[in-house]
Amino acid sequence: MKIAVLPGDGIGPEIIAQARRVLDVLRQDGLPIELEEAPLGGAGYDAYGVPYPEFTQKLCRAADAVLLGAVGGPQYDTLDRPLRPERGLLAIRKDLNLFANLRPAILYPELANASTLKPEVVSGLDIMIVRELTGDIYFGQPRGMGVNEQGEREAFNTMRYSESEVRRIAHVAFGIAMKRNKKLCSVDKANVLETTEFWKEIMIDVAREYPQVELSHMYVDNAAMQLVRNPKQFDVMVTGNIFGDILSDEASMLTGSIGMLPSASLDQNNKGLYEPSHGSAPDIAGKNLANPLATILSAAMMLRYTFGKEEAALRVENAVKTVLAQGYRTGDIFEAGCQKVSCSGMGDAVVAAL
Amino acid sequence: MKIAVLPGDGIGPEIIAQARRVLDVLRQDGLPIELEEAPLGGAGYDAYGVPYPEFTQKLCRAADAVLLGAVGGPQYDTLDRPLRPERGLLAIRKDLNLFANLRPAILYPELANASTLKPEVVSGLDIMIVRELTGDIYFGQPRGMGVNEQGEREAFNTMRYSESEVRRIAHVAFGIAMKRNKKLCSVDKANVLETTEFWKEIMIDVAREYPQVELSHMYVDNAAMQLVRNPKQFDVMVTGNIFGDILSDEASMLTGSIGMLPSASLDQNNKGLYEPSHGSAPDIAGKNLANPLATILSAAMMLRYTFGKEEAALRVENAVKTVLAQGYRTGDIFEAGCQKVSCSGMGDAVVAAL
Ligand SMILES: CC(C)[C@H](C(=O)O)[C@@H](O)C(=O)O
Ligand SMILES: CC(C)[C@H](C(=O)O)[C@@H](O)C(=O)O
Repeated sequence: MKIAVLPGDGIGPEIIAQARRVLDVLRQDGLPIELEEAPLGGAGYDAYGVPYPEFTQKLCRAADAVLLGAVGGPQYDTLDRPLRPERGLLAIRKDLNLFANLRPAILYPELANASTLKPEVVSGLDIMIVRELTGDIYFGQPRGMGVNEQGEREAFNTMRYSESEVRRIAHVAFGIAMKRNKKLCSVDKANVLETTEFWKEIMIDVAREYPQVELSHMYVDNAAMQLVRNPKQFDVMVTGNIFGDILSDEASMLTGSIGMLPSASLDQNNKGLYEPSHGSAPDIAGKNLANPLATILSAAMMLRYTFGKEEAALRVENAVKTVLAQGYRTGDIFEAGCQKVSCSGMGDAVVAAL
Repeated sequence: MKIAVLPGDGIGPEIIAQARRVLDVLRQDGLPIELEEAPLGGAGYDAYGVPYPEFTQKLCRAADAVLLGAVGGPQYDTLDRPLRPERGLLAIRKDLNLFANLRPAILYPELANASTLKPEVVSGLDIMIVRELTGDIYFGQPRGMGVNEQGEREAFNTMRYSESEVRRIAHVAFGIAMKRNKKLCSVDKANVLETTEFWKEIMIDVAREYPQVELSHMYVDNAAMQLVRNPKQFDVMVTGNIFGDILSDEASMLTGSIGMLPSASLDQNNKGLYEPSHGSAPDIAGKNLANPLATILSAAMMLRYTFGKEEAALRVENAVKTVLAQGYRTGDIFEAGCQKVSCSGMGDAVVAAL
């Protein structure tokens, strides 16, 4: 179980440190876990002058899985665009062919108050968003700035999907739906965009291989609305890279506690990159205040999806549930009557619960 | 005041009928209003075989403003794509050069319970979303389906903005911000898409002409999240066609009562198309159940933006506030203790309040 660990920037090193403690416990209990660190994002730039250094690339290519903290920080905002931290993230996704991004939006009962939505609307919320991650307008060519036929400045990007790109993400989504409630909603804008009309056709075609799954379709604008109106109507959602970027962030915020939400980005062989859904939070970096639970839960997803260690994954997830039930809270999820803990304090609690 | 009236499909004719009654009152009180009807969408297809018939086009081109009900219905879903109702909508926007779509998201105090969000998060909500409506990936060329270099089927669309397209929507947005709280948030994905990097640069450039307006920038994924987390941080938002489609629907649903929300789509000279933000609701069509208030409020926007009749606009808006305060409610916004009325019953109440 070779794991490349990329602490990244901001709170990244702190939250990764706590996830490492959790993995250390599992190793002591017999899992053959090997960890090695490398810089990504701003840390990559600081060390090697680029956000995805060759050193990091080599390590990640050789590893079975990658555990990432977060990237980005204000000190990198004035760098040339290709050198900025988020380019490291886009580069590693593309380099490792991590086309399937899984982003759960789960409301923990203990944290129900954190949501800005009424309890009856979100209690029990458990959505899995499957976002295609290496195609679409993120990577489509041609792209750039130039001058149009009228001699005017313009800029353009290309939304593009090939059949195989859509097929493989469809299979991932149907596979996940099969393991859950067998309900899959594919999100498109087929009334306007040919790319997503094509997407929809292929979803319908792949659905024939999963007769038990009930496939539905929704326009992206309506999906953005329905997530607010009645999010519990959804179980698994699948969509392209840019719509998935928007909807998965919206869905995660429905829970009110994105400090709790992990994510996985998988390739064809379940090699994966695992990271919290939240960002690098430069404002609280280095202060031992961050919530490490999303990173710890990302490690649990890694145990499940890349290594097939369902039992170990559940053990970690149950430890997180235990510490919530015990009332431990970092600042982002704190409420009166609970016990406020630091980032490492939360790590202590999880290790104890393990 | 020549107004082309396009009832459209579904509940369109019913809600338009009530808005006409409101305009009739204003005409009797002295406004030189002339109304003429034409079919659009499915109604256009039924009458002339196309969703935006020439008859309708001529009327709309000659008019000062267009009042639209809604388009679309299941009976048109199997038509060839170019014949479908929503193509009529896209065609009229492009034909009349209606590049500025204004979509308010306002929470009426009397309807605060309708929101799925907690009252303290949404009470007093009043956001104006300015969406560019005739450019972006909706209309960008090239687009279509084909076969790529690897011989595989693919589909593609082009996101594209020229400088003048961005400049003119920027001026509309800054102009509106000047009349409100002088806070404008431009939404982009400048960390990934050159088109929106270009958009952002031009926003910053235009901002120099509006030194009193505080311009901020936000990534679209974060905006989708912030609308859920703390929507009252926003006053005026401006964004491109596809992001605006998604975010304006999300924002309108925050109010819980999209049956109340009007919209305007303006050209360079304030000629405009006015329509409710909601759809054609085929399930309740013909039953006299629909909420006509969004359409009536759209007529008020028309009086304000196209005809500069602020007083008449306020008179209509105040009449709507009055009927809400009196407790009249159509089914979509009904709650215990209020008086349920039909579509025409709500029209009666508004006419009485006028
Ligand atoms: C940082 C950015 C490039 C990235 C994306 O848009 O994919 C982020 O928003 C995400 O969702 O992981
Ligand atoms: C019907 C559709 C083409 C349209 C759009 O996407 O613009 C609608 O969603 C809207 O927002 O008016």
